[in-house]
Amino acid sequence: MSINQICMISVNKTELPRTQSLEWYERATKVIPGGTYGHTSPAATLPYYFPYYVDRAEGCYLWDVDGNRYLDFMCAYGPVILGHRHPEVEAAADAERKKGGLYSHPTTVMVELAELLVARIDFADWCVFGKNGSDMTTWSLQVARQATGKKKVLVIKGAYHGVDAWTNPSPGGIIEEDRSHVHTFKWNDIQSLRETASAHKGEVAAIMVTPFHHPAFGANQMPETAFVEAVNDLCEKESIVLIMDDIRAGFRISDNGSHGLFGWKPDLSCYCKAIGNGYPVSVTVGKEHLKDAGGKVFLTGSYWNDGIALAACKKCLEIIKDQSVPEKLANVGQSLLDGLAKAAKANDVKIRCHGPTATPIISFDNDPDLRKMQRFSEFSAINGVLFHPHHNWFMSLAHNEEAIREAVEVAEKAFCAMKEEEI
Amino acid sequence: MSINQICMISVNKTELPRTQSLEWYERATKVIPGGTYGHTSPAATLPYYFPYYVDRAEGCYLWDVDGNRYLDFMCAYGPVILGHRHPEVEAAADAERKKGGLYSHPTTVMVELAELLVARIDFADWCVFGKNGSDMTTWSLQVARQATGKKKVLVIKGAYHGVDAWTNPSPGGIIEEDRSHVHTFKWNDIQSLRETASAHKGEVAAIMVTPFHHPAFGANQMPETAFVEAVNDLCEKESIVLIMDDIRAGFRISDNGSHGLFGWKPDLSCYCKAIGNGYPVSVTVGKEHLKDAGGKVFLTGSYWNDGIALAACKKCLEIIKDQSVPEKLANVGQSLLDGLAKAAKANDVKIRCHGPTATPIISFDNDPDLRKMQRFSEFSAINGVLFHPHHNWFMSLAHNEEAIREAVEVAEKAFCAMKEEEI
Repeated sequence: MSINQICMISVNKTELPRTQSLEWYERATKVIPGGTYGHTSPAATLPYYFPYYVDRAEGCYLWDVDGNRYLDFMCAYGPVILGHRHPEVEAAADAERKKGGLYSHPTTVMVELAELLVARIDFADWCVFGKNGSDMTTWSLQVARQATGKKKVLVIKGAYHGVDAWTNPSPGGIIEEDRSHVHTFKWNDIQSLRETASAHKGEVAAIMVTPFHHPAFGANQMPETAFVEAVNDLCEKESIVLIMDDIRAGFRISDNGSHGLFGWKPDLSCYCKAIGNGYPVSVTVGKEHLKDAGGKVFLTGSYWNDGIALAACKKCLEIIKDQSVPEKLANVGQSLLDGLAKAAKANDVKIRCHGPTATPIISFDNDPDLRKMQRFSEFSAINGVLFHPHHNWFMSLAHNEEAIREAVEVAEKAFCAMKEEEI
Repeated sequence: MSINQICMISVNKTELPRTQSLEWYERATKVIPGGTYGHTSPAATLPYYFPYYVDRAEGCYLWDVDGNRYLDFMCAYGPVILGHRHPEVEAAADAERKKGGLYSHPTTVMVELAELLVARIDFADWCVFGKNGSDMTTWSLQVARQATGKKKVLVIKGAYHGVDAWTNPSPGGIIEEDRSHVHTFKWNDIQSLRETASAHKGEVAAIMVTPFHHPAFGANQMPETAFVEAVNDLCEKESIVLIMDDIRAGFRISDNGSHGLFGWKPDLSCYCKAIGNGYPVSVTVGKEHLKDAGGKVFLTGSYWNDGIALAACKKCLEIIKDQSVPEKLANVGQSLLDGLAKAAKANDVKIRCHGPTATPIISFDNDPDLRKMQRFSEFSAINGVLFHPHHNWFMSLAHNEEAIREAVEVAEKAFCAMKEEEI
């Protein structure tokens, strides 16, 4: 088959069945604002040919309500690290489910999981659990405030730390008091860090950073060593609590938290997503000197003793280490990026590849409004591969070399079609 | 057996096996601040003989890690409405779990559940889902702020609306700005309502109330009709959003939300707990005029598309209506209170019974420091029944007349022992 024939397939295959997705969306908009909400909304600048409603998933594939099969590089925006329906995690969850799951009291799996995390993460002396990532970033800030008696938190401009009022990226429903003690500095910019810290000297409870910068609508940015050291030093010198928001990448790029890979020295780290392979759980781990403060910031929730999610989390973290999952994700992600680079080059399309390769993304040269990225994503979706247009992708243990070949073949069609369209 | 013999049994049966609970607690305190946290902590003024860690549960019974069996009137602090491990809910959750559970996109069960809620709840035109109850009370306040352009929220003194900073009952980690627009008025006190509203006239976005007042460390208090009308009228007259926090009792005392039982006319209602029989899900429903504002307050979370919890919720709500669960809970709760009243009277112990009978609690006369209540709770726990000392209890569909007989027999031992001790 010639390249032109490949292109024809991808360009003309716009008759992807969509009836069910559209019908459900029509029904949904009547009873849910916007049909769905948040970053999964069809309105959230996703290509039209992304599915709206999913029926089922297995391994690295999912099927939408029209029966279309997709190779899934979104993995539920991060939680699915071992592949959908990983049998060992499902068995662990099921065993707990058969005992009951939720009681007025915790189960021993909470204690065992806490012991695992404290043993695994170098600086961790204790931990607590929540349901959402935001539960933990917000609680960590409160612990820092309790411990220091100070109010302010410094964060990276453009970083996302959850949906809670102090950090929600949208202005809807937010009042100025929600953010009156939140101040920003620029990623990898030591001068900006020092200026912001200096402007609020003696008032800063915490600095919150992600291990690497992963803004929406932008490529991942690794931290420079000098920047990491400057943040570490400032926190130590001024007794500022360093909070690592490791929710996006935690346990995907290292089996013991991402901070060590870059030299961060956090006092608290927040995890979520990949730790439970889809079961709802989030964690904060902390250093001994904050344990007392941690005990003083009231933390509870209707479902936080949920043994099912905690059992799934424990099994998932065991597999991540025992099967060297981060290394495997890095390798398979590298294969994907290598394949995409080669396919782009063969079609004279100029792309850049961004890591960490376990959470990769590409960008197109001269694509300020992300039009090329959007088109690439759309072409790929039509041909059965979900590459998100403006959020990093996620590799899972279920993404094998066969899946990568399929993804690269589809990407090649997309690059070829884009060349034909002269996008 | 004479009454004195009954008393001897309960007083002397303090050799309840506790080894495992204590050992696990010892381990837990090393890796979790306080061993556990929140209202389930052993430190949270629960009797010593309450279990610390639960192994399993079935129906209305649970077994702790020492193998002690308890008749459970806590039901995970509310979520377990149909009894632990209700087969139909488990089957619905399992069917969704076998399809996958969590994806980057929602499932159709989210739409079907939204349709069910909108059809069921008289004023509801739309809904959204979260994980924690707090997710929804906080989001509702933000929707009110978005819709009105105003900042302030009026709440009942002593009411609990979750763990988020603006309403967290503990001062730990909270800064004054978190609560600078939160003002309180007194339950069932129209003058207090008017004074508070008047002091902030033109600045109030929302009034948030529970359908009846259920403070910790106090008896339930039903609303007076005139108070409900005064709140309704004020909200209507001044375009204040009336938010019903129906998280504690929602779908336990009525199959379509608790507001209608008391005449409340909410614009938004928040539900959690009983809607999922233990699976983690929370809901806000709203009126049409707030749908646009609802779409503008960014709402997302790592696990909010979780089809397992949504499927469990849908099935649970269906059973609640189809099997007239609120009526059955009211009846069995009444049987319990009748039995307790009779047993108390037989022992010359003066108690009062408080409803709604589906979420009952008793109080002792002349018990200002709750010492009697604590002792009653402890005696009962030693004999295998969990009556919480300062939080309303929860009936479930699994509590049958046999369970009530057992509970009353144990309570009679407790009353008798208290009489002997002259507490």
